[in-house]
Amino acid sequence: MEETNRTPVWIMRQAGRYLPQYRAIREKYDFLTMCKTPELAAQVTIQPIDLIEVDAAIIFSDILVIPEAMGMHFEMHEGKGPMFHNPIRTREDVKQLKRIDPMKDLVFVMDAISLSKKELNGRVPLIGFSGSPWTLLTYIVEGSGSKNFATVKRMVYDNPALAHEILNKLTEAVADYLSAQIESGVNAIQIFDTWGGILSPGDFEEFSLQYITKIISLIKKKNEPIILFAKGVNYNPLKLASIGADVIGLDWTIEIGKVRNILEGKTALQGNMDPTILYANKERIKKEVIKILKSYGNGGGHIFNLGHGILPDVDPDNAKAMVNFVKKESLFYHKKESSIKGIINV
Amino acid sequence: MEETNRTPVWIMRQAGRYLPQYRAIREKYDFLTMCKTPELAAQVTIQPIDLIEVDAAIIFSDILVIPEAMGMHFEMHEGKGPMFHNPIRTREDVKQLKRIDPMKDLVFVMDAISLSKKELNGRVPLIGFSGSPWTLLTYIVEGSGSKNFATVKRMVYDNPALAHEILNKLTEAVADYLSAQIESGVNAIQIFDTWGGILSPGDFEEFSLQYITKIISLIKKKNEPIILFAKGVNYNPLKLASIGADVIGLDWTIEIGKVRNILEGKTALQGNMDPTILYANKERIKKEVIKILKSYGNGGGHIFNLGHGILPDVDPDNAKAMVNFVKKESLFYHKKESSIKGIINV
Repeated sequence: MEETNRTPVWIMRQAGRYLPQYRAIREKYDFLTMCKTPELAAQVTIQPIDLIEVDAAIIFSDILVIPEAMGMHFEMHEGKGPMFHNPIRTREDVKQLKRIDPMKDLVFVMDAISLSKKELNGRVPLIGFSGSPWTLLTYIVEGSGSKNFATVKRMVYDNPALAHEILNKLTEAVADYLSAQIESGVNAIQIFDTWGGILSPGDFEEFSLQYITKIISLIKKKNEPIILFAKGVNYNPLKLASIGADVIGLDWTIEIGKVRNILEGKTALQGNMDPTILYANKERIKKEVIKILKSYGNGGGHIFNLGHGILPDVDPDNAKAMVNFVKKESLFYHKKESSIKGIINV
Repeated sequence: MEETNRTPVWIMRQAGRYLPQYRAIREKYDFLTMCKTPELAAQVTIQPIDLIEVDAAIIFSDILVIPEAMGMHFEMHEGKGPMFHNPIRTREDVKQLKRIDPMKDLVFVMDAISLSKKELNGRVPLIGFSGSPWTLLTYIVEGSGSKNFATVKRMVYDNPALAHEILNKLTEAVADYLSAQIESGVNAIQIFDTWGGILSPGDFEEFSLQYITKIISLIKKKNEPIILFAKGVNYNPLKLASIGADVIGLDWTIEIGKVRNILEGKTALQGNMDPTILYANKERIKKEVIKILKSYGNGGGHIFNLGHGILPDVDPDNAKAMVNFVKKESLFYHKKESSIKGIINV
């Protein structure tokens, strides 16, 4: 996103169930069919640009297309999440995982990117994404949604060599996949480490961050900005900011201004409104938008977003109101800087 | 817990399903019957003292006995958690909540405390506990387990006055309940704010911390040590340490030594091993115990514990091994201090 006189804004999961226009399509096709049909994926990718007026599109897809392309089968159950037929538990199971050729095995994502780019026609940038190797590992080892992540953590603690073997394979696949997305035209990349926060700090570095670092070093040469969102990992922003990402995404459990102070401009920041604030009335939403803009303070380097995906039962009107509050209220924090600069220059 | 030449250790949920001796009783009685029968509650309270050799007992009970005593009905479903018949959603619903007299309405807890104290016969201290008002609010508003806490957060953002009205009632009940536990003989109190971490920092202060502060000021005069465990609230330990608690409990997502440095002795610390480490082999468990002891460093002020409750499918042998590693390995960090002191004094 370019320098503007206001804070840019988009919403994680903005192409999703809270939009009636999305649900109308979803009624006719199941979730994975939508991911795999470029025309449908592009259509729902564009929806929030027109309907919610966000400043960026993010390609409609699912992080689990990678393990599927590697040879694993799963079904998506509404409200329950994914169910893998043969989760990975042993060294024998690892043989399921083949090396992917994203331009072939995930060509539907690349086609959806090309189509979306064409239909966006330069209106806003398009963001590509992937889950982190660690987050993908939790799904393919647990096999389904989990409360305590007992199975994957048992593997990590009891057989770390096996965990690393799988993480290496996933890292290769994620790097290839993101490179292909960039070649297909995305303008930025977001890496989601949704489950990094369930690890202790040392284990996070060993089982998640080192692999994200490797991916970033592999795709960085392509020069597209990289956003790293490691949910629940707020305890060491300096570490997150040291591995080459251009933007660090924050969940809502930390003050964005505090992180800005710690990072001293090392990276830009994205976030971080509590997604449930969108259940409130518009006045409360406005108050919260201003609170976050004020916490970040004057000047650029902030992409407004929620601190996690938008919830499926949010009123789209509230999402649109949030976007418009950001657009309007953030002018103040950009103007102020220039006016101060103006005064100093006089 | 008194000054010792080693680090004391107990385990959250140590009286629980991972013990075959607990399950043997649980097979005959349902969970709430166990809570409400002082002989059974005392029996399972004592079990881990003999079996796992922890340094403290914690009274076997459930945080939801308070809303039940206030007039709400719920059932406990194994693996699914509690289900309230009439969750609180409106101002009208609040009328359900009557003021409690803990010595009458929760006399079974007080009797379990007296019985446990008698049977412990001074071997180890007995800890009493309660959920925080905010954590209790999440259960009585949601009515059952929740992923996004959409209902309670909708109340907080859309009708904060109603939320505060209920929180005030819960605060009064929790303070009365904890005072009664102290009068009945517990030697320390732990306040569990299991769901404080789902709030943004400002909302945590408004909807959780201010009520915990009030409770502590009300029970503090009784002079029993107070442990505050606010899971997922690691971002501002100084704030947590400023409201009168003697010990701050930490989950496993932060380095305990880092928090010790920030707090500079303002409170003692409890924690903070990842509960899933108990799935690993004993060597790995020992390594992790040492890592945490080393992170905390020399001297007293540390109560070893997990960073959350012990998981029901852990091998009790591993729990016992952890306890023994703490007892043995922590000697080093206490000796070292005295020997350094010895050298300085020479």
